[in-house]
Parts: sequence; C-alpha cells; structure tokens
Amino acid sequence: MSSSKPIWDRGDAIDPDMLAFTIGDDWLLDRRLVEHDVRGSLAHVDGLERVGVVDATDAELIRSGLRTIVDEFRAGTFTVEPSDEDVHSAVERRLIALTGDAGKKLHTGRSRNEQITVDVRLWLRDAIASTTTALRAVADSAAALAQRSGHVPLPGYTHLRRAMPSSLRDFADAHARAFSDSTDDLELAARRVRFCPLGSGAGYGVPIALDRAFVAQRLGFEAADEPVTHVQLTRGRAELAYVTALESIALVIGRLAADLWLFTTDEFGFARLPVELTTGSSMMPQKRNPDVVELLRAHARQVVGDRDQLREVTRDLPSGYHRDFQLLKGPLFRAHDRVTAMLPLVARLLDRVEWNEAHLREAAADPKLAATARALERAKAGVPFRDAYRDESRKG
Amino acid sequence: MSSSKPIWDRGDAIDPDMLAFTIGDDWLLDRRLVEHDVRGSLAHVDGLERVGVVDATDAELIRSGLRTIVDEFRAGTFTVEPSDEDVHSAVERRLIALTGDAGKKLHTGRSRNEQITVDVRLWLRDAIASTTTALRAVADSAAALAQRSGHVPLPGYTHLRRAMPSSLRDFADAHARAFSDSTDDLELAARRVRFCPLGSGAGYGVPIALDRAFVAQRLGFEAADEPVTHVQLTRGRAELAYVTALESIALVIGRLAADLWLFTTDEFGFARLPVELTTGSSMMPQKRNPDVVELLRAHARQVVGDRDQLREVTRDLPSGYHRDFQLLKGPLFRAHDRVTAMLPLVARLLDRVEWNEAHLREAAADPKLAATARALERAKAGVPFRDAYRDESRKG
Amino acid sequence: MSSSKPIWDRGDAIDPDMLAFTIGDDWLLDRRLVEHDVRGSLAHVDGLERVGVVDATDAELIRSGLRTIVDEFRAGTFTVEPSDEDVHSAVERRLIALTGDAGKKLHTGRSRNEQITVDVRLWLRDAIASTTTALRAVADSAAALAQRSGHVPLPGYTHLRRAMPSSLRDFADAHARAFSDSTDDLELAARRVRFCPLGSGAGYGVPIALDRAFVAQRLGFEAADEPVTHVQLTRGRAELAYVTALESIALVIGRLAADLWLFTTDEFGFARLPVELTTGSSMMPQKRNPDVVELLRAHARQVVGDRDQLREVTRDLPSGYHRDFQLLKGPLFRAHDRVTAMLPLVARLLDRVEWNEAHLREAAADPKLAATARALERAKAGVPFRDAYRDESRKG
Amino acid sequence: MSSSKPIWDRGDAIDPDMLAFTIGDDWLLDRRLVEHDVRGSLAHVDGLERVGVVDATDAELIRSGLRTIVDEFRAGTFTVEPSDEDVHSAVERRLIALTGDAGKKLHTGRSRNEQITVDVRLWLRDAIASTTTALRAVADSAAALAQRSGHVPLPGYTHLRRAMPSSLRDFADAHARAFSDSTDDLELAARRVRFCPLGSGAGYGVPIALDRAFVAQRLGFEAADEPVTHVQLTRGRAELAYVTALESIALVIGRLAADLWLFTTDEFGFARLPVELTTGSSMMPQKRNPDVVELLRAHARQVVGDRDQLREVTRDLPSGYHRDFQLLKGPLFRAHDRVTAMLPLVARLLDRVEWNEAHLREAAADPKLAATARALERAKAGVPFRDAYRDESRKG
Repeated sequence: MSSSKPIWDRGDAIDPDMLAFTIGDDWLLDRRLVEHDVRGSLAHVDGLERVGVVDATDAELIRSGLRTIVDEFRAGTFTVEPSDEDVHSAVERRLIALTGDAGKKLHTGRSRNEQITVDVRLWLRDAIASTTTALRAVADSAAALAQRSGHVPLPGYTHLRRAMPSSLRDFADAHARAFSDSTDDLELAARRVRFCPLGSGAGYGVPIALDRAFVAQRLGFEAADEPVTHVQLTRGRAELAYVTALESIALVIGRLAADLWLFTTDEFGFARLPVELTTGSSMMPQKRNPDVVELLRAHARQVVGDRDQLREVTRDLPSGYHRDFQLLKGPLFRAHDRVTAMLPLVARLLDRVEWNEAHLREAAADPKLAATARALERAKAGVPFRDAYRDESRKG
Repeated sequence: MSSSKPIWDRGDAIDPDMLAFTIGDDWLLDRRLVEHDVRGSLAHVDGLERVGVVDATDAELIRSGLRTIVDEFRAGTFTVEPSDEDVHSAVERRLIALTGDAGKKLHTGRSRNEQITVDVRLWLRDAIASTTTALRAVADSAAALAQRSGHVPLPGYTHLRRAMPSSLRDFADAHARAFSDSTDDLELAARRVRFCPLGSGAGYGVPIALDRAFVAQRLGFEAADEPVTHVQLTRGRAELAYVTALESIALVIGRLAADLWLFTTDEFGFARLPVELTTGSSMMPQKRNPDVVELLRAHARQVVGDRDQLREVTRDLPSGYHRDFQLLKGPLFRAHDRVTAMLPLVARLLDRVEWNEAHLREAAADPKLAATARALERAKAGVPFRDAYRDESRKG
Repeated sequence: MSSSKPIWDRGDAIDPDMLAFTIGDDWLLDRRLVEHDVRGSLAHVDGLERVGVVDATDAELIRSGLRTIVDEFRAGTFTVEPSDEDVHSAVERRLIALTGDAGKKLHTGRSRNEQITVDVRLWLRDAIASTTTALRAVADSAAALAQRSGHVPLPGYTHLRRAMPSSLRDFADAHARAFSDSTDDLELAARRVRFCPLGSGAGYGVPIALDRAFVAQRLGFEAADEPVTHVQLTRGRAELAYVTALESIALVIGRLAADLWLFTTDEFGFARLPVELTTGSSMMPQKRNPDVVELLRAHARQVVGDRDQLREVTRDLPSGYHRDFQLLKGPLFRAHDRVTAMLPLVARLLDRVEWNEAHLREAAADPKLAATARALERAKAGVPFRDAYRDESRKG
Repeated sequence: MSSSKPIWDRGDAIDPDMLAFTIGDDWLLDRRLVEHDVRGSLAHVDGLERVGVVDATDAELIRSGLRTIVDEFRAGTFTVEPSDEDVHSAVERRLIALTGDAGKKLHTGRSRNEQITVDVRLWLRDAIASTTTALRAVADSAAALAQRSGHVPLPGYTHLRRAMPSSLRDFADAHARAFSDSTDDLELAARRVRFCPLGSGAGYGVPIALDRAFVAQRLGFEAADEPVTHVQLTRGRAELAYVTALESIALVIGRLAADLWLFTTDEFGFARLPVELTTGSSMMPQKRNPDVVELLRAHARQVVGDRDQLREVTRDLPSGYHRDFQLLKGPLFRAHDRVTAMLPLVARLLDRVEWNEAHLREAAADPKLAATARALERAKAGVPFRDAYRDESRKG
C-alpha cells in the first residue's frame, strides 16, 4: 500500500501522532473482518444497482473487484495495512485500484459507521454459532462423565467441609446442565444480530431511496434495523450480549476449575490429571503441575474484564456515532479468543481426568457424612427433627 | 425476640463479634423475604404430609401457624430481628413458639441452603414481572413521544458535531426500541427461575423420599431442579441474569440521560425540563438544575457496580454451598430498588420534557447538515461518489 | 421536622417523586456527617466574623446554636430526617429555628457543594486514622504468630502442589508485611485530604474576600485547596484513594482467607478454627463451619465492587459540580464499614487459629519437598544444574 | 529455534493444545523483557560466583554469553519465539547453545517464579520513570495554558448549567494540579518495587547460601525482599500499584476530555481543535471531528478495565506461586501502552486548542452568572443571606 492518505483527506495538514493514535491497532483487528466487509459490500452494490444508483456494468465491475479482493486476501497478497486506517478504507482503496471510477461509486449512500456494524454482526453470527457448538461439546463431555460414573461416590461438601454423601454422577450432571444453560445466553445474543444496519448511513439514513429490505434479506437478516437512529444508539449491544454469554460460560468454567484444582491435590486425592495435561517446573524436578486448570481460571476471570471494557465504551454517550465505538472490537475479539481456546480444553479435562475410585470410596465411608441421615431416621420415627438434630449435634 | 441463640446452637461458646459479622445486615434484608419464605414452607409441609413424614394434624398446625406468621408480619407484630440470624430461623422460631413440637418438624428434610434459593426465586418471579411492566411503560412513553412528534426536526449528530438531518420521531423511536429490547433480557432471567430447589437439601438431596415434583408444582415451578447438586453449583445465576437485565436497562437509560442532559442546556436549547422536575441551588438563586437526569445517570452507573458485586460472590468457588452466597442479596436488592425508582421517572421525563420546536427548526436549517445530500445529488448525476465527496469537502 | 420544603424552594411546584428520588437515602447516610458538618460550620462562621461579614454577636449566636445542635444530636433529639434533603439543610434549618436571623447568615459565602467536601474530608481523616490503627493490629497479630511459631514447618506449595520446605514463621511474616505495606496506601489517601475546600463555593469561589488560609488552619488542613475549581474537578478523588487503600487491604485478606480456608479442611488438616469462631448447620448436626473465613472472602470481593461504584460516579464528567457526586457516599461508607468489621476478626483469627504441629511435621517429611535440594547438592558438586535437574525429574 | 521442548521436559507425552494454551501469547509479551531478564541473570551469575557455586571461568563465559544475547536481540537475530514458552527459557536455551555446560549452571539456585518478578520490577522501574516524565509534561502544558490565559473569562458551570463567573486560568490550573497529583500515585508504585526477589526461588528460598543483599544492590534495589514467601504472596501488587496510578491519570484525562468535547461543539463554541488534530468522515464531506478527544475518553475508560483484569488475576489465591500470575503481563502492558500513547496527545491538545476569546467574553456577560453576587451584596449590607437568596431566586 503506497498511499497513506485517509479516505477523508482533503489536503489539510494531519498530525501524524494523532492519526496513529486514532488508528491504533484497528488495522490489525480489522484483518479479521475482511471477508465480512466484502460480503456487506456485495449486498450494498446489489442494492445500489437495484435502485438505479449504479448501473449494471459498474455493479458487475465492483462485484468482480470485490471477489478478487477476497481471493487476494486468502492468497495472502492483500490485507489491511497500518497505513489503511481500517478494513473499509483498505477494501475501497484496493477496489478503486482494481476498477477505477466504478470502485469510487461503491461508497455511495453508505457510511463506515454502518459498515462496521454490518461486518461485526456478520462476524458475530459466525462466532455465536461456533461457540454454541464448542459449548455443546463441553456439556456432552460432562454428561458422558456422569454417564460412565455409575455409582462412584463423591463426598458432598458445604463450606468445603464434608457434609453429605453424593456421587460423581451428580457432580458431573450439575456441570453438564450449567454449561448447557449458557446456550440460552447465546440465543439472546443471536437475537441482537437479527436486523440489518445497511441504509442507516452515518446513523440518520441517507437521502437516496435504498431498498433496505432487499439488502437485509440478501445478507440473511430478518429485516432492516429500524429506525435508522437505533443502529448507533445501540452500538455495542450485540457485542455485549455475546460477551455476556461468554462470561456466563466463563463463570461455569471457573467453578469447575475450582473443583478440579482441589480434587487433584494430594490432600484431596480424588482425581489426577493425566501427565500429558500437566507441566513441570524449571527448578523443582519432582513437580507435575495443573497449569491448564489455573489458566482456565485466570482466563475465565479475564473474560469478565473483557466484558467490563466492552460495556464501558458506549456508557453514557448521547445518541449517534462516536469514535469511541472503535474500541469495541479489542475486548470482543479477546473474549472470543479466550473462550474459543478454553472450551476444547475443558472438554478434554472432563474426558481424561482420572478419578481415584478407591480413594473416593474410602472418603465416602467417613461417618460424618451420615449424621443427617441418622437424625432423619429418628425424625421419621416421630422425634421432632429439631430435637433429633440437637441430640446428634451434641455427639459431634 | 428474647432468644438470641442460633438455630444450630449446641451449647458451645460462640464469639459474639464473629456471630454479628456473619449475620451482618441479613436480618434486615431478609425482611423482604418473609412472605416468600412462608410460601416455600407451606409447600414443604404439604410435601412432608404427602410422603407421610408429618401427619395431617401436625401439618395443619404448621400451616395454620405459618398463616398466622404472615398475618403478624403484615400487622407489624412479627418481623426478622437482628437476633434472628435470618428469615428462616425467625420463622421457624416463631412457628415453634406458636405450635410447639409440630413446628419442630417443619425443618425435616430440608436445609436453609435450599430455603433461601426458593425464597429468592419466588422473589425474583415477582420482581421480573413488575420490572417488565415498568419497562414497558417507559417504552410506551418513548413511543408516544415519537407519535406526537410529527415532523419536528432534530439535527443528527456524529462525534457530537452536526452531521445530517433527523427527526424527534426517529430519536424517540430508537429509544423506544432500545428499552423494549430489554424485555428479552428479562425473559432470559425468567428462564433461570423455572425450577424448584426444594428437596435439594444442603445441596446433595435428603435421605427421605420427598415428592419433589409435587412441591415444585404447588409453587408454580415447571419442575424440580435436577440434579440436586445443580442448585448450589449455580447459586447466584438467576440473580445475575436479572441484574444483567437491569444493567441492560440502565445502559439505555444512561444514553437517554446523556441526550436529555445536553439537549436541555442553554447551549443546545433543544428542550427544557418542566420546572417541577428541576431543583434549585443553596447558594445560586437563579439555578434550575436537572438533578433528576444526573442521578439517573449516576444510578445507572451504579447498577453496573451492583452487578459486579453480585457476580463476584460466587466466582471460582468449588461445588456446593458456601457462606459467601449470603452476600448475593445486598447487590440484588440494591439494583432492583434503583431501577424500580428510576423507571417511572424516565417515563415521566419522556412524557413531560418540553421540546423547543422553534429552536429545533432553526437548528435543522443549518446548511452543514445538507452537505452529504449535495454530494449524493452529484453522485446520482453520475459523478463517482468519492470525487463528489472530495469536491464538497473542499468547500468546507 | 415539620417543614419539608427544600432550602432552595421558591414556591414553584415540585414533583414529589422527583424529590424523593433525588434525596434517596442521603438523609440516612448524612447522619454520619452531622458532627463534621458542624465543625465545618464553626470554622466558616469564624471566618465570616474575621472578614466582617457577620458581626461578633451573630457569630456567637451561631456558634452557640451549632454547639447546641451537636448536643441535641448526641442526645438523640436532633438528627437528619427524610424531609431534610441533606445534613447541611438539616443543620441550617435547625440553626435558624434556634437563632433566627443570625442563623440565616451562616450560609453567606458558601455552597453545599463545598460543605459536603469539607465534611467528607474531615470524616476521611478520622476514618484513615482508625483504619490505620486496626490494620497495624492485624499486622502485629501476624507478626506475633510468626514470632511464636519458632521452627514449626509448613510445606511450601506452588500450583497448590507440595513444592519446597517452608515454615509457619515465613508464612505469617509474609502476611504481616503484606498487611503492613497497605499503610502506604492509607498515607496516600491522607495526602488527598490535606487541603481545605472552604471558600470554593459552588466551585468558582465566592465574591467575598474570605480568609481561606485562616479557616483551613482552624480545621487542621495544610492550606486552602487551590485553585477553587480544583475542588469539584477532583470530587471523589480522596474517597477513591481511601477505598483503594481498603481494596489493597481486602486483597491481602482475600489471600489469607484462602490459606485459612484450605488449611483448616480435614484434607489439609494443618490448622483448626477454635469452636467459638465456627458456626453450625440447620440440617447437618455434625458440622462446624468456617463461615467467618468465607464472609471475609466475600466481603473482600465486594470492597472491590464498592470501589468500582465509587469510581464510576465521577467518570468523564466535565468540570464543575454535578448531582451525581451525591452517590459517592454510599460506596464509601459501605467499603469503610466492611473493612472496619473485618479487620478485628482477621486479627482474632491470626491470634486464635490452632495449628496442628504434629500434622505439619508429618507433612514436612514428605520426600518430594527435598527433590530440589537433592539436585542442588549435585550442582554444588559440579554437575551442571540443568543435568542434575533432569536426572532428578526422571525419578519422579 | 529448532527445539520446541519445554525446559522442564522429561520425556513424557505433552498435549500440544494444552501446551499452546498455557504458553498463550507469553512469548510475544516476553519480548519486552529480554533485556531486563538478562540484567537479572547477570546479577544472579555474579551472586553465584560470589558464593562459590559457579567458578570464575564459568561465570565469565555466562556473562559473555548473556551480553552476546543482548547484542543479538538488538540486532534482530535473537528473540523469544512461540516455541520458547517464555523469555527465561529462550535466554537459557540460547545461552546453553552459546556456552555449553557453563550455561547449564546459570539456573542453579533460582526459579522462573522469581525471575519473572525480577524482570517485571526492573521493567516497572523504567515504566514509572518514563510515565512520570510524560505526566509532568502534561501538567506543564496545563500550567502554561493557565499562564498565558491572562484574564480570559470562562463561564463556571454546575449541573452543566451556567452558574458563576470563572476563568480559563482557573480551569487550566485545576487540571494542572489534578495531573500533577498523580505523581503521588506513581511514587507509591515505585515503593512497591524497592526490594529484590532474587534468592526467593520458587517462593520458599533455595537451599544454597546465596548473598541476597549483594545481588539486590547490584540491581539497584534497596534490599532483598523478605521473607522469601512475601514475593509470591504479593505477586501483582507492584503491577497493580502502577496501573492504579495509570488509572488515576486516566480519570483526570477523562474529565479533561469531557470539557474539550463539549467546549469544541458548535453549541458551546468556546474552543476549536486545530484542523491537524481533527479527522474527516467517509460520507459527510463537511465534517471535522474530534476523534482524538473521543479516543482519549475511550482509552481512559479501558485503562480502568485493564486494572480490573490485572487485579483479578491474583484474587483469593492461597499463598505461593500459581500459573495464573502469567496473565498479569497482558493488562499491565496494555494499560502502559495506552497511557504512553495518550499523554503526549493530551499535552498537544492543551498546547494547541484554539480558545475563542470573543465568544468567551460574550458568554461571561450572561447576567445569570451574577445572581449570587447580587444576593451577596445584599448580605454584606445586612440582609440575612437566606432572605436575600429568596428574593433573588424569585426574580429567576
């Protein structure tokens, strides 16, 4: 990319530090959106042709140019560069290089403000689908563990003190359901990307009679996002719904990680990580460490932080577009990448952790676990429970 | 309440500071749960009678005692006192005072760990319903504003700089939809309170053949929460879903508040708060201040903080009950109270803000707002948009 | 208080819901500030007298009235009522009732905007001092534990797996130093309350030649806060510095609580809570639970949330006073109350936890703990450490 | 780097996904620490030589190898690669390649757990120093603005409504002092990196008589960090202190950005951004936008989120090292990079914003601003202030 002039350049002086600061790492993040951006542009040019703003010849030139750009991107010969400001500018610039005046017509009747929302909604649709699949695999692993656990006992703890008899099956089933319930959160996120921003322009529509329903349908949306002012007013809302779903998953992972962390200590001794899922120490030769469990916990905690950062971007801003919105992408992608990395490892842990049945049976024989049952026996025999309880507690 | 002994007292020494610290303000918060607690107990005693653990005579005594307690509570002669530890202990203690040995049987086959989850789920059902109603009223007020705004113009801003023509109708409609969409979040919260914890005991079930489906149905739940271990593993999840919905509402309020805050300045001059919705200054005689708008913003920000506090309580705790869960109630009630106070005032603002049509029409005549239309005119005439844009921008 | 008219009332209609919403629970929170408010007013009247705005007779009447108010407050016959809006209005109203026209002169040349900052800074001075004392007591308890632990071993863990030999002394000394270091954070908070806001008015000074240095000195501040605009620009900063210090303490408590929580399990068995610092279960007669440790953890987590709420109040507001600032007090007091309740219990735990020396000695004999020492022996004998490590690790 | 075996490899199977997940982007982040890591190693080898664990020949070989590594790093021929796990492993591996058996002795008596804390403390020393310099430059720019503002008026706002007369000088001076005060926070951070972790090993010391004071002094620390257990117990504390200081700066920036954002609107019209500090729109030819101000606000908000993520890493973990600590670096570096990018632009804005004196003088003539002065005039003439206020307010 030889050109480094912004698409809005009109010959004025531009402070290079200001420009670098405003671009930030957007060019890098935007590489994830190249194909989504082209999909949006293909629909837009179809729309422009349909309402007669671009003629068939130009429209075909533009479409062909856009397809070439995707090919180049996949081949590694085109991408977003630091000098490009963003994916929209990069694609438009490359298109103009490929198609000349035809390319200069593509941006008719639209704004980068709406383009980025189209790109992100398309990206979110893919992300929600793939996360749902990965989440279901985790829930399946937990259910499979429950399934194969038969009657293996597991002491039930309250306050991390032995409380009541329980089973590995109930332990695993609870986690299966907890994971599975997060699909509701993903479905809510999917509801937030049902409508198509194209035609909303900079946030107030465009003074051209675009066929918004047509382009919405071509991109697989339910309908156009109405009113046009709604698009920028709710910037970040779909992203937040998705990351809220990721947070709900992370919270479940955090609790499972706590169980695995404790159960695999020598002191509890209920389970063992297979050696291939452990790491060693640089100084202490004997160590086999549960780093994977610890990093699940730590990443789960930071998903929460990603959500905080995402939510803060739009807080208390008046109606309309603000440049702040650019910073929605960083925490969105970070949260997605974390959970995408975590879920398969959670499934693997559930599949491979080695439960120490002998020790579990021994632990289950702890007479403390039966104190409630003894009190209830007497209650069934007619002693008021509160009295039976008191008698039993005094034995303690 | 003369007795200050905890229900679990067995005669050992109890450090009074420790006890006061662990009770905290629970007795005060629990006053909100008295009726829900009794509803749960009524179902439980029905269940105990059904499986023969309590006979018909005792069951009737207990039921009658519980009804008396509700009457006393409503009459102000019974409530939870600091010496009571919690609502469950208070009700049980009062019941025993009223019914003697019958009352001592009520706690057979259950734990306070499950009782509190029953109480909170019943409370949440009510809260979700009332918040949904209040939210719909706000969306209706916004829609009514749109409706009556006809063709009143409103300049459209990007970067808080005049950008494109827009209308009061589009402004209000966007807010109407943004509020209305939060009902999805409330529905998700409602999904989290569908199942009945009764019978889960301290988290591992109880060694009595309770009829969990029966009591679930009596309390209006879809089914029993299964497996029993799921109840404590997901403590706080329903609360979090509800407060997430409140946060989603708060975020919309925050953006509306920003608009009203700016639009009612002298500098913007688009609208005026009616005098009865303003306050004065202790020192500056001329001031009429938009405190209500500012406090909507500030409370909206703190709803977010309430959610943070709620979510943190259960983070990374292993399976099973932990006393930490007690601190779920504070941020839950605080967030609910905030939004319950805010929503009617938001509706009132939407209903009563006085829009300055004359000034809005004048602002709408700003020629800057038409620059895009001029460039698009030329684009429709065949000049590539990017070139028409450049020409127009150089006029700037 | 019969009068319910705000101090700024000028006869216009006031929406009662709006008024109730803006007052919120301020009247309740402000009860904590009555004496500080009076201290500030005493200095202010001295200042007014000094520059001749109030004559000696009126000044003496006002001083005497203010002293009466403190007496009434301590006697329980005067306090801030819901109808009072805030402490400043309550005190002024009572003063006027007591002194007539003299009292009406007290508010000359000041604003509630500055009054509240004076009150809070005075309150913070007291709070910082008392928290410092309580914190030192905790550090002393940890140091005393180290002192009396002699050569009691404690296995050193990494990744919660046994790693290297260590000692109870080093464990306790590390905590002692970690607590002790938080005094630095409290000192930073103390730096934030060095300057006196009196004379800054609503944030832009007052058109009267007040002697700001004089009143600053009378209240024990280093100097007047300059420029006057700095007072409102940095609203919440002193509060945030204090709550940041509380958070730093809470983070140390959180890690100590984690140690105590694990060490007192049956599985680790390193220590035992004395029975008077445990609680029981309503259903399981055998249980003695570490609720105090769990609630230390949970409250420590919520201190962090209090800080979030406090910080958010002032975020991104332009220069000058905003009503949002009212919501600084809630999280400030909540955080303070939590830590004030926690610190003595932390000290008590450090003083009274019963360490199981026999079990600690047994654990310390675990041969795994010596693997590094064996590799280092060989390293001292000339084998490259990385080779000695490898040989030792293969024994594992 | 042909070898991809971790330094702790002993020939067991290693799950490659687990390994990739645990390494994460550490190799990338660690590139920032290469020189600090070598500085730490140079001190460590001096220490080993001093106590006779490594002889003079080997020590000299190691030192020479380490210097070569720095040269290679600066020349771009050596860096940390994804296959390296971390900077410590990369440097050790390269050293062994360069020096053979001598290099294998470097890790004697130390652990990566302490190495990373040494590296980060050295990095923090540099970061604190450079941020202090940049912060002072901002405070100086604000002070210079105050200086050159002479008697230019600026209306003083409360509740974003005109309140009292004020001046550009007081506006700028308040910001100068607010920025300047954040140096206190940076000094507190500097206190947190005074002590040297070398010799603390994996957290429990090393069974070799190292001279900890000697290496501490060679690295410019005040003393060794004592007790050894303190190092891992307080992991993240220095980082948090630094990021807290960055947050305090960000909060001040956020408020300044709010002022600039409003003052440069057409509606306020108090100031103008110079064109080179504005950007354009892709669709609206007339726009010059304050993106830099908006992104200062947005980044300031995300610094707060970085701090949240950093703090969460270590929350509630028991004593000793945990792999979670690895995730301290990401938010630390992100926060640092943000503020490093922001501060020079804040200074530039303060230097170059063009104030519209004519409009400021016009605004200052608004008679509303004088209402308090009028009431105070009457108060000085003997009318009780509260009565004068009432009269004046009724004119409103």
